[in-house]
Amino acid sequence: MTGLALQFADEPCAEALSDARLLAAMARFEAAVARACAQNGLVPPEHAEAIASVCEEAKFDTARLARDARRAGTLAIPFVKALTAQVAKASPDAAGYVHLGATSQDVIDTAVVLCLKTAGGRILELTQRLGDAAAALAERHRDTPTVARTLLQPALPIPFGFKAAVWLSILTRGRAQFRQALEGAAMLQFGGAAGTLSSYGEKGDAVSQALAEALSLSRPAIPWHSARDSFARLGSETAILTGAAGKIARDLSLLMQPEVGEAMEPSAPGRGGSSAMPHKRNPALSLLALAAAQRAPGLAATLLGQLSPEHERGLGHWQTQWFTLRDLFLDCSSSLAAMADGLEHLEVDSAAMSVNLHRTRGLVFSEAVSLRLAQSLGKSAAHALTERLCERAAREGKTLEEVLRADPEAAQAIPASEIAALFDPAPAFGLAGAMIDRAVEAWRQAYSSARHPRSHE
Amino acid sequence: MTGLALQFADEPCAEALSDARLLAAMARFEAAVARACAQNGLVPPEHAEAIASVCEEAKFDTARLARDARRAGTLAIPFVKALTAQVAKASPDAAGYVHLGATSQDVIDTAVVLCLKTAGGRILELTQRLGDAAAALAERHRDTPTVARTLLQPALPIPFGFKAAVWLSILTRGRAQFRQALEGAAMLQFGGAAGTLSSYGEKGDAVSQALAEALSLSRPAIPWHSARDSFARLGSETAILTGAAGKIARDLSLLMQPEVGEAMEPSAPGRGGSSAMPHKRNPALSLLALAAAQRAPGLAATLLGQLSPEHERGLGHWQTQWFTLRDLFLDCSSSLAAMADGLEHLEVDSAAMSVNLHRTRGLVFSEAVSLRLAQSLGKSAAHALTERLCERAAREGKTLEEVLRADPEAAQAIPASEIAALFDPAPAFGLAGAMIDRAVEAWRQAYSSARHPRSHE
Amino acid sequence: MTGLALQFADEPCAEALSDARLLAAMARFEAAVARACAQNGLVPPEHAEAIASVCEEAKFDTARLARDARRAGTLAIPFVKALTAQVAKASPDAAGYVHLGATSQDVIDTAVVLCLKTAGGRILELTQRLGDAAAALAERHRDTPTVARTLLQPALPIPFGFKAAVWLSILTRGRAQFRQALEGAAMLQFGGAAGTLSSYGEKGDAVSQALAEALSLSRPAIPWHSARDSFARLGSETAILTGAAGKIARDLSLLMQPEVGEAMEPSAPGRGGSSAMPHKRNPALSLLALAAAQRAPGLAATLLGQLSPEHERGLGHWQTQWFTLRDLFLDCSSSLAAMADGLEHLEVDSAAMSVNLHRTRGLVFSEAVSLRLAQSLGKSAAHALTERLCERAAREGKTLEEVLRADPEAAQAIPASEIAALFDPAPAFGLAGAMIDRAVEAWRQAYSSARHPRSHE
Amino acid sequence: MTGLALQFADEPCAEALSDARLLAAMARFEAAVARACAQNGLVPPEHAEAIASVCEEAKFDTARLARDARRAGTLAIPFVKALTAQVAKASPDAAGYVHLGATSQDVIDTAVVLCLKTAGGRILELTQRLGDAAAALAERHRDTPTVARTLLQPALPIPFGFKAAVWLSILTRGRAQFRQALEGAAMLQFGGAAGTLSSYGEKGDAVSQALAEALSLSRPAIPWHSARDSFARLGSETAILTGAAGKIARDLSLLMQPEVGEAMEPSAPGRGGSSAMPHKRNPALSLLALAAAQRAPGLAATLLGQLSPEHERGLGHWQTQWFTLRDLFLDCSSSLAAMADGLEHLEVDSAAMSVNLHRTRGLVFSEAVSLRLAQSLGKSAAHALTERLCERAAREGKTLEEVLRADPEAAQAIPASEIAALFDPAPAFGLAGAMIDRAVEAWRQAYSSARHPRSHE
Repeated sequence: MTGLALQFADEPCAEALSDARLLAAMARFEAAVARACAQNGLVPPEHAEAIASVCEEAKFDTARLARDARRAGTLAIPFVKALTAQVAKASPDAAGYVHLGATSQDVIDTAVVLCLKTAGGRILELTQRLGDAAAALAERHRDTPTVARTLLQPALPIPFGFKAAVWLSILTRGRAQFRQALEGAAMLQFGGAAGTLSSYGEKGDAVSQALAEALSLSRPAIPWHSARDSFARLGSETAILTGAAGKIARDLSLLMQPEVGEAMEPSAPGRGGSSAMPHKRNPALSLLALAAAQRAPGLAATLLGQLSPEHERGLGHWQTQWFTLRDLFLDCSSSLAAMADGLEHLEVDSAAMSVNLHRTRGLVFSEAVSLRLAQSLGKSAAHALTERLCERAAREGKTLEEVLRADPEAAQAIPASEIAALFDPAPAFGLAGAMIDRAVEAWRQAYSSARHPRSHE
Repeated sequence: MTGLALQFADEPCAEALSDARLLAAMARFEAAVARACAQNGLVPPEHAEAIASVCEEAKFDTARLARDARRAGTLAIPFVKALTAQVAKASPDAAGYVHLGATSQDVIDTAVVLCLKTAGGRILELTQRLGDAAAALAERHRDTPTVARTLLQPALPIPFGFKAAVWLSILTRGRAQFRQALEGAAMLQFGGAAGTLSSYGEKGDAVSQALAEALSLSRPAIPWHSARDSFARLGSETAILTGAAGKIARDLSLLMQPEVGEAMEPSAPGRGGSSAMPHKRNPALSLLALAAAQRAPGLAATLLGQLSPEHERGLGHWQTQWFTLRDLFLDCSSSLAAMADGLEHLEVDSAAMSVNLHRTRGLVFSEAVSLRLAQSLGKSAAHALTERLCERAAREGKTLEEVLRADPEAAQAIPASEIAALFDPAPAFGLAGAMIDRAVEAWRQAYSSARHPRSHE
Repeated sequence: MTGLALQFADEPCAEALSDARLLAAMARFEAAVARACAQNGLVPPEHAEAIASVCEEAKFDTARLARDARRAGTLAIPFVKALTAQVAKASPDAAGYVHLGATSQDVIDTAVVLCLKTAGGRILELTQRLGDAAAALAERHRDTPTVARTLLQPALPIPFGFKAAVWLSILTRGRAQFRQALEGAAMLQFGGAAGTLSSYGEKGDAVSQALAEALSLSRPAIPWHSARDSFARLGSETAILTGAAGKIARDLSLLMQPEVGEAMEPSAPGRGGSSAMPHKRNPALSLLALAAAQRAPGLAATLLGQLSPEHERGLGHWQTQWFTLRDLFLDCSSSLAAMADGLEHLEVDSAAMSVNLHRTRGLVFSEAVSLRLAQSLGKSAAHALTERLCERAAREGKTLEEVLRADPEAAQAIPASEIAALFDPAPAFGLAGAMIDRAVEAWRQAYSSARHPRSHE
Repeated sequence: MTGLALQFADEPCAEALSDARLLAAMARFEAAVARACAQNGLVPPEHAEAIASVCEEAKFDTARLARDARRAGTLAIPFVKALTAQVAKASPDAAGYVHLGATSQDVIDTAVVLCLKTAGGRILELTQRLGDAAAALAERHRDTPTVARTLLQPALPIPFGFKAAVWLSILTRGRAQFRQALEGAAMLQFGGAAGTLSSYGEKGDAVSQALAEALSLSRPAIPWHSARDSFARLGSETAILTGAAGKIARDLSLLMQPEVGEAMEPSAPGRGGSSAMPHKRNPALSLLALAAAQRAPGLAATLLGQLSPEHERGLGHWQTQWFTLRDLFLDCSSSLAAMADGLEHLEVDSAAMSVNLHRTRGLVFSEAVSLRLAQSLGKSAAHALTERLCERAAREGKTLEEVLRADPEAAQAIPASEIAALFDPAPAFGLAGAMIDRAVEAWRQAYSSARHPRSHE
């Protein structure tokens, strides 16, 4: 991946999914096939080594490969031809053993998987960063009062950390499921022309086993040439992680509205300016995550729509999944990286939160009032009275506290000395603290199991 | 679900997802809330029982609820109002305790989950039937020669059971993942107005715990009002199972072409006729599965596009997910049921398979020829010679065996006595038998873990 | 359409798309076929009348039809059977002429088209209402200052009418295109078993012509059994209108945030309340439109994914398009109706707009300042100076006007007497007035051409 | 567009949509802005010419632009900066006038439109080629008997040209609608910071008019920064054209099955081979079209999901539409080009068609038999008798003609002398000939209106 599309990608992820890397992975597959055959007496060892050594350094004319692939119906044909030509230069006798027993889809699917594995590792890293940042925010703001907003309307006081903990809960599930889907997709594709490894005779099993080991891939019970479920699943999980970053971006971009002003993406030179308006501070990171979240569902749907290929190898289903998955991974990495940058140095304005909490005439404390009234009046009567008080506050431009103190029915129900406490946010937090703790704890468990990525991923 | 849409649904699944069942599940939630509150001293026990008893028998005017819900912005408001009115008739004092501490989304999300759980169980059953049928076919036809078709062209001989084993491999993964996603989604939604269970004070945790137990749902670390990932994941897995059935249908409908004629959906009175053409035998079951597979990706994409709601409760994201998930489940159940019917009594025509195998002048044996030639000539020369032989066979209207026997270069490479064996399908099966065995074994393991659905699901 | 789904539908539209209406339209088709055949001597006139008269009153057992349709592979088979039985009761001889020469897809596709035409008329009406409301707002608020917001950040002053005029521009295009797509889709489907009307011999053309006239549908050059482009196009245009309503809803829901508070959906009894929070005034209409806008793209994608059916009649492509189009139309009608209600009585708070305009320390006037500075300093220097002034204002908590007056470089560039005018919104409106006028004028042209719907639609 | 993705693109289309072309179009916009400003006295003419002259030759470091764009939130900021620096080298005084009065989205949206216009012209050309090829096939095979297949089952005889005429009917509608959508999208985007062209004062209208003329774009009533309907519509029409090519590919790939063997994509060196199976002749062109048709719906859905951006400029909606539209255009061009290649030299095997027609024991003539029987027995009895005859033919392995001649009831109904004629395909063609003529005529009309693309497109 190069070019302007990099604006919407994480560079290390894009690098792992470049054309060059795909071709290198294809060469790596061919090297490993030659060696696995050699281990099983199907290819003379020196020829396998000759092939492997050319594979390591092989160079390809990408544009020409693309053109020939368009004609041939598959990239594998011109690729194998070009590779064979390079092997032939080094060792004419070895050339006859290139791609022995494999089919086009074997080399392409496996190479795609190899690239996705690396890029998926990067996505896991970025998710880790993002989750850690959300966890830190959740803990840091376990007691910072802000207002919950439902349907974009102020509802009740919550700690700001509660919002971060909800983000975190999505990432906790999403990271585990993405990893599982990535591992599930990290299967060797190796079946030869019809999927049965028919050309190796009895040795197919051993060759296949050796190949899977050499490439550190799992070996499915049966090839998946026309079983595209693992890619569809991986695509959906990628879209879900992208949506998780999009959720954070949605909230940040709303909090950054100057009329709200409760949190700001960190500023940085060159970030979030406007070519026409010098005063603006745009949610440039949130923009990246939201852009990705808007694109991911359609791409995931493409993979979900390619589950029913014809017979043993379909027409058009698998051939372009590299491109669809690449776009999905780039969207996902872009959004995660942007939000990790955003949360790690998020500027939280707790004073603004406090102002906003009280700005709506204390109406966000109406639940506390209603509950307290219910102790004396019963739920229905309390709800109705609270509604009337809220309306009066709105109509008369007073605070809820003022109208509450002035109302005779309310006065009977609540002693004056208890009224002030109803407008304190902290008691209204309910279980928020415990919920934050649990959400962070759940993440930490995932975190520690992810601490040694080398052994687990 | 009633009406003409039932044409494209499994009835038990549709029944579990009817409007009436959703309302009943909502009532079940309210009953359980009242009791959980009573257990914790928040509601007098007799009032809780009065509520619960009304909930069991509550009747609703669906059309009126829908109209009022449209105005209110949520079904929960008119529902709670109607329920409260019914409680009030039975026990005026109890009425004040209906829906205590819960929010609209709590009752709706939880009721949706309860209905999905039942319907999901039905989907698991259907998947079981379909997988069992595929496994049986895979075993029964472990040695039945047919031709593999790649890109809709005959490729190589395979046993017919290989095809069924590939279907099975998708179902093995898909069933496990669907179950996991269903369990993951089977979470209580319970947070009250802002998600923090603020109205219960210290008792929120105990109420929530009791409620989860009463409804046999898991309790998440933190409410998921604006964390819609579990529904998105469930939607994707549902689409994947639908695609798995679609894959089988794709193959069956192609095999049923009279020009191919290798397998037929079982005939039944009233199935697959034509209003205009009495001779037709339409793939009416495959049609159902393919129709579902065409609809599922767009529906799943809707859920993947609703991952970024605003703040603590979004606008439009969760409110319609019931309908989207219902459509997905109906599509899935319809396709699985149709394919289970199709595979359980599939009419396999092994004679037709044999005819087709040999019909293309033996060209599907070209790999065997090419491999044998390679032993003498090396891979490249063998491939080139085989290509020439195939072309000559096509041009001269002869079989590959005939031109092979007539070709002097080939004659040198292969003793005449070895030629006949090259045109025997069975040796060309490669590892197919072992692959089938592994795929069936993998399914059987899932099967036995699924044998006691009561304890596992 | 009945049941809880009505919450998310416009009722007249839902009524036009009910199961009963589809069956009635199918009967209407069969009546018209019988009469068209009678006109051409293929059916005795009295039999045609007998059929037609039964068709007008025919009753069907929907659930049974659905079940039989599931088995048959098409609703048409049990439908024709049930209809024939009813005709047979009235006139045994006439029964043999029911559905003469037609195929299943003829009656279903045509009936779908007939229902869509009515429902599409309703959508055009709703669009008219919505556009008229937007046009009225655009004109009424041609000079009401508010702030443009780009990337959710205040940008520059604009009149509020500008916002409404942008909404209107989408509706102007969208209404015309939807109508065109609806007319394009309003094609008779009539081809018989293979599409060639083979069973009528020479009379096919005349029968087909008579049928098209009787049903007021256009007649395509060739049947469209496997040409589903018109439905895909109609689906996309429906999604675009839904998105147009969604755009309005997005803006309204953001403007209704109490922190912004510039416009409010009209309140009404029972609208937008909360089961837990009596003080809330939820954007309940916007919610409906946003919910619809989230669902429409996936549904439209389903139709775009069904463009490649097999041969002369596909498997699964057309069979469920009724349901997909119905859902799309319901979503669209729901969103348009909600937004028409919202805009017709929108509560606009111009005082709040004015407050917000000046709240950001006058920074939204920075373009005016920068442009004025550029007259003296050149564009780059002016941009840089304005940026510094904005930063200083933010840092020191002053207004832009204050720092501008205090800055020596600025003082040299702008005479003090000219400064106040830079902070007047109206001069900053640019071409907004003319743009509003043009947008309204474009709509009015569409409006008057739509005034006589009977003759044009 | 470069790299391996070219395998799935038409090269001229890809060239028109390359990064370089987008940057050149952005420079073209800036040149035209400067000149339009100069025409209206806002920029000294010599400075405008200096800018324009640099724009023509401007070079950009794409990777660096992408990186800076990621930080800035928009490509326009680093682009304008880089361009300004190049202008400054040539003329320091002119540099201050670059991008005067425009906003980031103005330059990007307009540049996208300029590139799409060129690429869209290429798509129209390819559609023309494809339609012409389909029209030629329709005419050439106006009387070539083949079998209609519904639900993948043989139905009735039709001429092969009927199939091509159905393809053509989709292209006739699709080409007109795509052109209309392309023209509709070919709108200047020009509004400055808030869309109101506020920085030009009274001269905005004249500048905008001059700019639209210079770039040969239409001028909308009001800017479309947050009105993305035209791009959504264009995306949908692109997907529909892609689906039209996909429909042709679906049919070709099915016809190319050796078991059917009725038509073959033209063979060419390097086309459609297999790396493992020398005998294969893959539908390599159909593969390209089907791959594109599988990807297009998800991409179009992305655009349909971006219709509701926030306020005057959205977060993520417009920023990536270049990439989505590019992918859609490439898919579309790839599929059209492939199918044009496929149809222009399609190898039609009318002998095979004839064989297949008669292969199903003459059952495809059952409609003719049934109709003839109905003349004597009435429709119901005839249908029932035909059904029995068909079953007997299948059961006894006889042809329908044989069992018909042998059946006593049938013998009474049809004179023996009339039987042979019932098994002649041509009389069963019905209106096919007239339908073909109409479809071709409709295309020809579109063709001639498209003959002078320079003046119309």
